[in-house]
Amino acid sequence: MKKICLFLTLSLLCFCCIKAEDGSRLWLPNIKVVKRAKITLEVKGTTADIIKNELMNYGAGVPIVLTLNKKMGRESFSIKSSAKSVQIKSGSAVGLLYGTYDLLRLQDTGVSLSDLDVEESPSYSIRLLNHWDNPDGTVERGYAGHSIWKWKDLPYKLSPRYTEYARVNASIGINGTVLNNVNAAPAVLSDESLRKVKALADVFRPYGIRVYLSINFASPIKLGKLNTADPLDKNVIAWWHNKVKEIYKLIPDFGGFLVKANSEGLPGPKDYGRTHAQGANMLADALKPYGGIVMWRAFVYSSSDKDRAKQAYLEFKPFDGQFYDNVILQIKNGPIDFQPREPYSPLFGAMPITNEMLEVEITQEYLGAANHLVFLAPMWKECLNVVSNDIKAIAGVANIGDDTNWCGHPFAQANWYAFGRLAWNPNLSSKQIAEEWLKQTFVKDTAFVGPVSRMMIESREAVVDYMTPLGLHHIMAFGHHYGPEPWCDAPGARIDWLPRYYHRADSAGLGFDRSSTGSDAVHQYPEPFCSQLDNINTCPEIYLLWFHHVPWNYRMHSGLTLWNELCKHYQNGLDETRSFQKCWDNLEKYVDKQRFEQVQRKLKIQTHDAQWWKDACLLYFQQFSKMPFPKNMERPVYNLDDLKKVHLPITNYENPTRQMLP
Amino acid sequence: MKKICLFLTLSLLCFCCIKAEDGSRLWLPNIKVVKRAKITLEVKGTTADIIKNELMNYGAGVPIVLTLNKKMGRESFSIKSSAKSVQIKSGSAVGLLYGTYDLLRLQDTGVSLSDLDVEESPSYSIRLLNHWDNPDGTVERGYAGHSIWKWKDLPYKLSPRYTEYARVNASIGINGTVLNNVNAAPAVLSDESLRKVKALADVFRPYGIRVYLSINFASPIKLGKLNTADPLDKNVIAWWHNKVKEIYKLIPDFGGFLVKANSEGLPGPKDYGRTHAQGANMLADALKPYGGIVMWRAFVYSSSDKDRAKQAYLEFKPFDGQFYDNVILQIKNGPIDFQPREPYSPLFGAMPITNEMLEVEITQEYLGAANHLVFLAPMWKECLNVVSNDIKAIAGVANIGDDTNWCGHPFAQANWYAFGRLAWNPNLSSKQIAEEWLKQTFVKDTAFVGPVSRMMIESREAVVDYMTPLGLHHIMAFGHHYGPEPWCDAPGARIDWLPRYYHRADSAGLGFDRSSTGSDAVHQYPEPFCSQLDNINTCPEIYLLWFHHVPWNYRMHSGLTLWNELCKHYQNGLDETRSFQKCWDNLEKYVDKQRFEQVQRKLKIQTHDAQWWKDACLLYFQQFSKMPFPKNMERPVYNLDDLKKVHLPITNYENPTRQMLP
Repeated sequence: MKKICLFLTLSLLCFCCIKAEDGSRLWLPNIKVVKRAKITLEVKGTTADIIKNELMNYGAGVPIVLTLNKKMGRESFSIKSSAKSVQIKSGSAVGLLYGTYDLLRLQDTGVSLSDLDVEESPSYSIRLLNHWDNPDGTVERGYAGHSIWKWKDLPYKLSPRYTEYARVNASIGINGTVLNNVNAAPAVLSDESLRKVKALADVFRPYGIRVYLSINFASPIKLGKLNTADPLDKNVIAWWHNKVKEIYKLIPDFGGFLVKANSEGLPGPKDYGRTHAQGANMLADALKPYGGIVMWRAFVYSSSDKDRAKQAYLEFKPFDGQFYDNVILQIKNGPIDFQPREPYSPLFGAMPITNEMLEVEITQEYLGAANHLVFLAPMWKECLNVVSNDIKAIAGVANIGDDTNWCGHPFAQANWYAFGRLAWNPNLSSKQIAEEWLKQTFVKDTAFVGPVSRMMIESREAVVDYMTPLGLHHIMAFGHHYGPEPWCDAPGARIDWLPRYYHRADSAGLGFDRSSTGSDAVHQYPEPFCSQLDNINTCPEIYLLWFHHVPWNYRMHSGLTLWNELCKHYQNGLDETRSFQKCWDNLEKYVDKQRFEQVQRKLKIQTHDAQWWKDACLLYFQQFSKMPFPKNMERPVYNLDDLKKVHLPITNYENPTRQMLP
Repeated sequence: MKKICLFLTLSLLCFCCIKAEDGSRLWLPNIKVVKRAKITLEVKGTTADIIKNELMNYGAGVPIVLTLNKKMGRESFSIKSSAKSVQIKSGSAVGLLYGTYDLLRLQDTGVSLSDLDVEESPSYSIRLLNHWDNPDGTVERGYAGHSIWKWKDLPYKLSPRYTEYARVNASIGINGTVLNNVNAAPAVLSDESLRKVKALADVFRPYGIRVYLSINFASPIKLGKLNTADPLDKNVIAWWHNKVKEIYKLIPDFGGFLVKANSEGLPGPKDYGRTHAQGANMLADALKPYGGIVMWRAFVYSSSDKDRAKQAYLEFKPFDGQFYDNVILQIKNGPIDFQPREPYSPLFGAMPITNEMLEVEITQEYLGAANHLVFLAPMWKECLNVVSNDIKAIAGVANIGDDTNWCGHPFAQANWYAFGRLAWNPNLSSKQIAEEWLKQTFVKDTAFVGPVSRMMIESREAVVDYMTPLGLHHIMAFGHHYGPEPWCDAPGARIDWLPRYYHRADSAGLGFDRSSTGSDAVHQYPEPFCSQLDNINTCPEIYLLWFHHVPWNYRMHSGLTLWNELCKHYQNGLDETRSFQKCWDNLEKYVDKQRFEQVQRKLKIQTHDAQWWKDACLLYFQQFSKMPFPKNMERPVYNLDDLKKVHLPITNYENPTRQMLP
């Protein structure tokens, strides 16, 4: 009987994937099964109803028994099955929901359900999305339309998207969301605003998702009409305690605060001569009674050192041991800012007594926005492979907007999916995640999944090659960050916002000397990394120009000069994008017309942009290298002078259209 | 002694080519020799002074004796030399001048001068440039600035360019120039205008160059205030006789008239129910006493047949035998209009009693204007190989303007040079002409001349591949003719001005059926051509879509389908342009900075345009073929919808800049 149902499911799947899809389904099951599964569920409540509903609609017909087991963790679950039935156990209803989605994932990715023996627990207890959504509906670095939060309509009108959002996140184990931009408007804590937040929290709760808020450190002044926000001021402390009390009265399971303080012009404890620790602890003290936490961002600038890459470390390391235990330091994967490739941030593991969490960017701020196909799992794993044991939580800056397909680019959905999966288990391989996502989002045919998952996995190295190979970083356009501008100069801008500060191109060579003879950033890393990075001959070439100022004629491991190697990487990047186009075009028959053509259009833009990056960067750097292009390299088609005149008419909230590009 | 001087010359050559050159020198000698040649010259006069001057300045030191030999033709010459001296003989001073330039060419191309035995006579007695220059200084299809004729300043102020112009043309044997556009303003025959023309004729005369004019057939009305231009009208006849008399009083060696009549809206004898023959003969009759000729253009439209390609033949063939002997029919190389590739015009050889001449276009109206490197000798030879014995004269539409480098693109100069050389001797190979030009214009090093001459020779097939492969034609943009527009539709335009009339793309296939089952244009060709072209299996594939409407899945000789073969050609064209860029970049050390960078910039545009053409044509035709791109073909980077929106802000007198292109 099960076989028949599976067969039906498969045949239906194959049928369904031909009809046009608008991408709104994401990776969730879309095949209502014919023979319904017999569900036995001992728990009751909304979460239980959700479980029943999912299994009734999408379960593949085998009888399923779900039981609570108080010995198990709240989010842990097990799945055992025989040919006759499937048993799901967990310590809570939410754990059973996770087990349910895992079962559906196994079913939809073609795993036989007749002999399952799954034991799952999340690697981190806090797995969050960070929304950089503003009250006016714009999304900073958002490339998929406006915010999905319709603040004007809340709390009375609830978009059906809110439930879908919770469902989708629960299906990959995300258990919290920070609703608003870290550049936080104080108004988010107003009474009116909090009632809107409560409405969302009520929708999310049954899916095991807690709500968090980014707060503005000066809220007591801006909102509370106090004349200071000094964390040691009695009135300030009182104000925060009252505000937190008010929040928990509305939202008993409120998660806590995310704080960007004394960074990029935002207020913070240092405005009052206090330390980050004093600021964070004051808030932590207020949240502590309710089980709330403070996520304090380590993304700060500091005048203590000329090297931007060293500042967060210098700023925070001295405070190890001073943070309360419900404070957690939120650290970006790299020392600068979400570049296509960065070495891991040396702050990880550098503060053994302090709680640390990882912040990655799912939205492609520096990676082609919603135009480029770049699968980010390989990039995140590059960092997780080093830091996964140093962190207690993980946050991803969401790429979600109110576009029909949620993320702008159909393949950007894969990054949302991958983030959730890696937050649950950082040991999953990029390949497994890509294949899971493809089978659930498109079709299971290996003739499709094989080449497309390869393309996804190669896509990250491709973008590094055509944008910033060999350790180059931060050479993109000012402001919107789309497209190359290694020459960029912005009147009045901080020097460490300008590309030339980072690439340091001159007649002698290219790259930022962070070795012991330079800024000595290498010594923020423990051995053996420190010595390995410090020595130009042992420094991995993928980080070479990050840590060293390298002569143009330096011999790389390939035997090529730095200049020729650089040219080779930019050419590889361009060639890769062309191969992606071929790969996709040749799989047309596996994909519905709508998504096929959307991806095809975007791959054209990606190849165009790869040419743009290659020409711009190589023509610009050639002015310093004064070396000819390698004989076998494809020549530029743009003129540097023309490219220097390009200025895209977009804000930081937009994805450029093809028509805007050179 | 001679050896030393040659050595000096060479070393100087090598030295000079490194300093920046603005291209104004063209291919003329630029090395003033150290040891002056001893010149013995029996003739006197301005031409003799020119000869002396050239040899004194540029002759390589060997004693040179120039003598008249009345037995020889006026333009024929011989060069004999020993280690001790060079002997040049001719029937006239102009012939000696030709011999002089030939000697300098041999010297500058590295031929040993110690044992020359040259006998030269031109293959055609009339070798003309046609300027499409307008009185207002614009140049129709001119891409090198404004007209070099400064009518406002004439006849009193003479630009030094006029002498250079005559010198350059004499150096390649061009012996006549039609000063004004075939779309002729009547005012060109006004008394004031003729005095200006006389001033130019006086400059050109010593260089053996005669002046001709394009005339407007309605001049008797517009200029003479008559109420008709009927060629059989007594007053009209009288007016022309007087006008011709007036001209010859000013310009005793005036060459004659070029006439575009009853074509593209211009007046002609048919307006009065007279034939082309009656119109041409009336003018010929007036010119006859003075030795002037009428060049009557066969480029006409006619309603007698739906196939544009057949009309000139149908219009003129019936009049064979009716034209006076000083009338010559000027026929474009192909039946349509200077496309990248056309079969030869069937009018050639079809009128055995009529004088015929060939008109080719040196200016790159349909070949990338002054942006693309396209060496036209191979294209012209494709036609000359068939028609060279049918013609008595040859005319080339000039690509000359007042730009510093005369032709806009440094390599466009090579087409002016090649035209002159082929007009003198159509049996010269494209390779020899390219090498001659490169050695005189750049340097003699084989490491430079070898690859660059190969590039030049391949460039014509490349442009056919990326614009109109396999016999496609006339799918360019409306009006300015730059860039692809196979979809073009212009409200109110004649259907035979629109691409779809020519490519005939539909679900069944591609191409214009001119076989015996179609428009039967093939029967305008003699056997064996007719049968060969008529049969789809024997029709040369370079002309396939010119003569046949071919199914998309038709098997080509390669075994590929038509669609895949078409894709392959467009890809080849793009790949070729990239290889040209590499070729040029790798020869930087042989070229002065100024010209190197100018050519480099233009090669970038050419590669960009090849991509534009490939994407536009293949994406457009794919709508009809409904076939996928071959797996190994590089994918488009443009969207068809975007390209359809492209409208270049240029007139028919301009070369688009990179910034204007998509």
